[in-house]
Amino acid sequence: MKLFGCDKVKITGGYIADKQELNRKVTINAVYDRFCESGRIGAFDFDWAEGKPHKPHYFYDSDVAKWMEGAAYILRDHFDAELELRVERLIDKIEEHQGDDGYFNIYFTVCEPEKRFSDRDKHELYCAGHLFEAAVAYARATGKTRFLKCMERYADYIYRVFVTEKSAAFVTPGHEEIELALVEMYRYTKEKKYLELALFFLDNRGIHDSEKTEYNQSHLPVREQTEAVGHAVRALYLYSAMADCAFETGDKDLERACLSIYEDIVGKKMYVTGGLGSTPIGEAFTHAYDLPNSDAYAETCAGIGLMFFAKRLLRLENRAEFADITERVFYNGVLSGLSLDGKSFFYENPLEITLSDRFEGTYGKRRLPITQRVECFSCSCCPPNLNRLLPALSGYIYGIENETLFVNQFADSILSDGGIECSMHTDYPRSGTVKISARGVKNVAVRIPSWCAAFTADRAYKMKNGYAVMESRGEIVLEFDMSPFAVYADSRVTHDANRLCVQAGPVVYCAEGTDNCAEGENLHALCVPHDFDYSVEYDEYIGLNTLKISGFRIKSAGNTLYSREKGNAVPVTIRLVPYSAFANRGESDMLVWLHAKQ
Amino acid sequence: MKLFGCDKVKITGGYIADKQELNRKVTINAVYDRFCESGRIGAFDFDWAEGKPHKPHYFYDSDVAKWMEGAAYILRDHFDAELELRVERLIDKIEEHQGDDGYFNIYFTVCEPEKRFSDRDKHELYCAGHLFEAAVAYARATGKTRFLKCMERYADYIYRVFVTEKSAAFVTPGHEEIELALVEMYRYTKEKKYLELALFFLDNRGIHDSEKTEYNQSHLPVREQTEAVGHAVRALYLYSAMADCAFETGDKDLERACLSIYEDIVGKKMYVTGGLGSTPIGEAFTHAYDLPNSDAYAETCAGIGLMFFAKRLLRLENRAEFADITERVFYNGVLSGLSLDGKSFFYENPLEITLSDRFEGTYGKRRLPITQRVECFSCSCCPPNLNRLLPALSGYIYGIENETLFVNQFADSILSDGGIECSMHTDYPRSGTVKISARGVKNVAVRIPSWCAAFTADRAYKMKNGYAVMESRGEIVLEFDMSPFAVYADSRVTHDANRLCVQAGPVVYCAEGTDNCAEGENLHALCVPHDFDYSVEYDEYIGLNTLKISGFRIKSAGNTLYSREKGNAVPVTIRLVPYSAFANRGESDMLVWLHAKQ
Repeated sequence: MKLFGCDKVKITGGYIADKQELNRKVTINAVYDRFCESGRIGAFDFDWAEGKPHKPHYFYDSDVAKWMEGAAYILRDHFDAELELRVERLIDKIEEHQGDDGYFNIYFTVCEPEKRFSDRDKHELYCAGHLFEAAVAYARATGKTRFLKCMERYADYIYRVFVTEKSAAFVTPGHEEIELALVEMYRYTKEKKYLELALFFLDNRGIHDSEKTEYNQSHLPVREQTEAVGHAVRALYLYSAMADCAFETGDKDLERACLSIYEDIVGKKMYVTGGLGSTPIGEAFTHAYDLPNSDAYAETCAGIGLMFFAKRLLRLENRAEFADITERVFYNGVLSGLSLDGKSFFYENPLEITLSDRFEGTYGKRRLPITQRVECFSCSCCPPNLNRLLPALSGYIYGIENETLFVNQFADSILSDGGIECSMHTDYPRSGTVKISARGVKNVAVRIPSWCAAFTADRAYKMKNGYAVMESRGEIVLEFDMSPFAVYADSRVTHDANRLCVQAGPVVYCAEGTDNCAEGENLHALCVPHDFDYSVEYDEYIGLNTLKISGFRIKSAGNTLYSREKGNAVPVTIRLVPYSAFANRGESDMLVWLHAKQ
Repeated sequence: MKLFGCDKVKITGGYIADKQELNRKVTINAVYDRFCESGRIGAFDFDWAEGKPHKPHYFYDSDVAKWMEGAAYILRDHFDAELELRVERLIDKIEEHQGDDGYFNIYFTVCEPEKRFSDRDKHELYCAGHLFEAAVAYARATGKTRFLKCMERYADYIYRVFVTEKSAAFVTPGHEEIELALVEMYRYTKEKKYLELALFFLDNRGIHDSEKTEYNQSHLPVREQTEAVGHAVRALYLYSAMADCAFETGDKDLERACLSIYEDIVGKKMYVTGGLGSTPIGEAFTHAYDLPNSDAYAETCAGIGLMFFAKRLLRLENRAEFADITERVFYNGVLSGLSLDGKSFFYENPLEITLSDRFEGTYGKRRLPITQRVECFSCSCCPPNLNRLLPALSGYIYGIENETLFVNQFADSILSDGGIECSMHTDYPRSGTVKISARGVKNVAVRIPSWCAAFTADRAYKMKNGYAVMESRGEIVLEFDMSPFAVYADSRVTHDANRLCVQAGPVVYCAEGTDNCAEGENLHALCVPHDFDYSVEYDEYIGLNTLKISGFRIKSAGNTLYSREKGNAVPVTIRLVPYSAFANRGESDMLVWLHAKQ
């Protein structure tokens, strides 16, 4: 299907609009302030010298570029003179310091000018890619092409170095990103050279690379890859580019590879939150069904990468499940990366925090996930990734093919593109009522979420690929059953054995110690029956419903460490909050997969 | 109570006798061979020089000394000319290379002679302690005192350096051991100076040490210590020495500290196997109720140390629970250290192996326990510790106080000490029948194991401190109910939540993948009801009973990674083997704490 871009769709209210407003009013500025303090913004002055603070890191360009991309999307919809000035000043600096040959990179100009394009693992093309995406976004949003012109010159230079002269010390980037950015650039400029360059990087990957590792998906030619491996963010950026190129070129081998990798991810390697990356070692995918909870890496950027990939697969095939995955990861493993006040961030998003697992001794400490979001990371890819994702969400909602309007996501919104108009009224996922009025199309295909066991529609429909397809006349009213339910993992997932998690709508819930444990108690002593009772309560601070469910707390019978007596199951009410809202009320234990009482 | 030593008691048959024979015929020689190959035996030639292989390590003396102690116990009961020659040759070397001042240490004579007694963390006094223990054992076993004389000279030298001249760079040893060895030496030689030296090291610990860390129990004066902390082996050797000195001096503060530490260990920090040390980081105790299964360190030596400590506590107080702990750790977390063929060893004894947790990537690999015993370690403390423990087990069985004979452990055995005679006939723990005939005492106090829910005796008894006290006339016949039962951990142990383990008699059981999982299946998908059915079958190879219990295998209902459908519980028979026998049939998953079906 063709997806309607952000310029055609406006989110008008509800939970997503609230998050967009938080980003616009708080997060975009908070990230900018942290980037000033950490020297990232100052680095664009190109005046660092040995002995001065804030030596530029080789990924600084990319951090700021993502922020600029986010700012561009915000400026598309909202006049903000100060924000625009900040972007324009950065563009001034980019223009000023870009090489005559078109090259632009802070680290490799200021710190190691002799090493340009010599080290595959130093993110040079990754930085370029993010700058390209930002430049296209800014051009689309404002019509101003000064930034884009700079980046076209840079892309032309990269084409010359890598394709024409082959003078770089490596063939394809160590951290993918430029490939999908080049497709974006091609789409906006219509310049085929950029698509060609994207394909050059894809086609050579795993073939002409001197080092072929799973870590950066160079282990095989991309068309022969069938499983998700290695660093999860790199992987998802690559897979997104593969899907883009499959769409632009009709390359069926590339499409098949994408679909195979997708099946591997969602069938074997994805946390219930949509999080990807089962280990902090290399921030990487591991193997099928290996999904440890406390040890989960599930980087916010990898979740965003999954949204990118699923969105691109939806362009290739009208299957609602792709939009299901987008929804799962967005409401859970992506939004968890951002604090409710919009100012601090998780890089990794674990599914369990047990503070009593902490241990530090003379010879080291246990590796445990961070338990509180922080305002700034030395490696700060996730915060500006949220900056750019949130204002771009309107591009995930509507699609069209053959006079059928596809409703992929549910958000209070308006679509307007020439003769096609649609308005959707809903408070989803706070409630399950969705009202859709479409004009200029014959049918409306509404995604029926895979989590949804029951729904009603006010008219006849036919199910097709997970969509309820119906006539478009008048106002369509759908009602999804948003009752909480238990979710079980495949029995091959050893870490979730004998456990369940609770979901309502697309929202995955967790228990926090702060709600459920007195001093000395822990969340592992809670048991939840499969048919738990529940009550639902809207939480203003969280912006979503919280749950109270019936369960039990196991209290040991004896006073010995081990006993023949099994503990007493004392009935308790367990409060659950959306996973995305965990760790917003101080440090606390947290558990997504609760022990099941059978 | 007074415990009857190895010279008064002989184990005549049954499981323990089998293990003793295995040690005598296989293990003692296997360890010697490995020690030859690794240069440990050759190191006693004191001829290493830069450029030659097998540079002596600073703990080599202690490894060989423990082997010598084991050989001594074996020689006490069995004529073995070759074994005796091996020991005598080592004593020749010790005599030859001991300094004129009495000093003896391979590493600090050959490798760093200028550094004698300069580095608290280099095991110099630890090596001395093991040599002292070996020398006393050899004197006791053979009456030959040549080795002991050497070691007395060394102990005198240490007294001079540490007490009289205070010329060492540190005050107390970084790795405890010498303290309990000095008490042994004092007991055999009656030379008070050795007890005094032991007390010197205890009294100064945590007071006059320049570095005071929990890691080596120097954080507090020993009498103020109330919790088990730091490196578990060091800790248990220290606590054993504290109990020894409390016994010899009647020091109530020392006794109180021992009892408090004991309560902390068995109430909060001990695996169900008796294993100690919850983390490989520093091979250490962590904190209360922190007992991860896969991550357990539970070093074989720490288990042996717990046997030492519990035995010494029994001397201080007639409480059966001390002997319960000895039994628990011996049959489970100690014997697991030795392969069934007697040739290879576990250093760490995890309670879970899940092979699918393995991950190795470009940036490292997950720390998982070793899954197969190996014949030799670079750090090889555990193998010779088993060499010396097994032939000394007869010293754990009988005790006496006020005309009451205490039966602390159950083994087919004979006691003979002057007017006191006892014979015990039993196939424990293969069966629960124990027949005891005692002469020369008024009463017999038989430990009723704390795991035992039902037993019968053929006469009247009164329970006192966990012992059934009865008249000694005629043959006493006891029958312990050896039926398998479920064990539950305190609900504060998060890692055992919603789980149970199966025990029969003192033997803790585990499930192995090799018995219970077809390709693609895992042990975490098994569930055991609290009231499982069972059958018992003796296994010749293991030498203990194995179990078959009724349980379920959870089979996922759908074909998606996450589902609203809970899995089907398919009835299965689960085979369990004694924990001590795990990993004797190739590499396999293993689980002690099985998921409970409620």
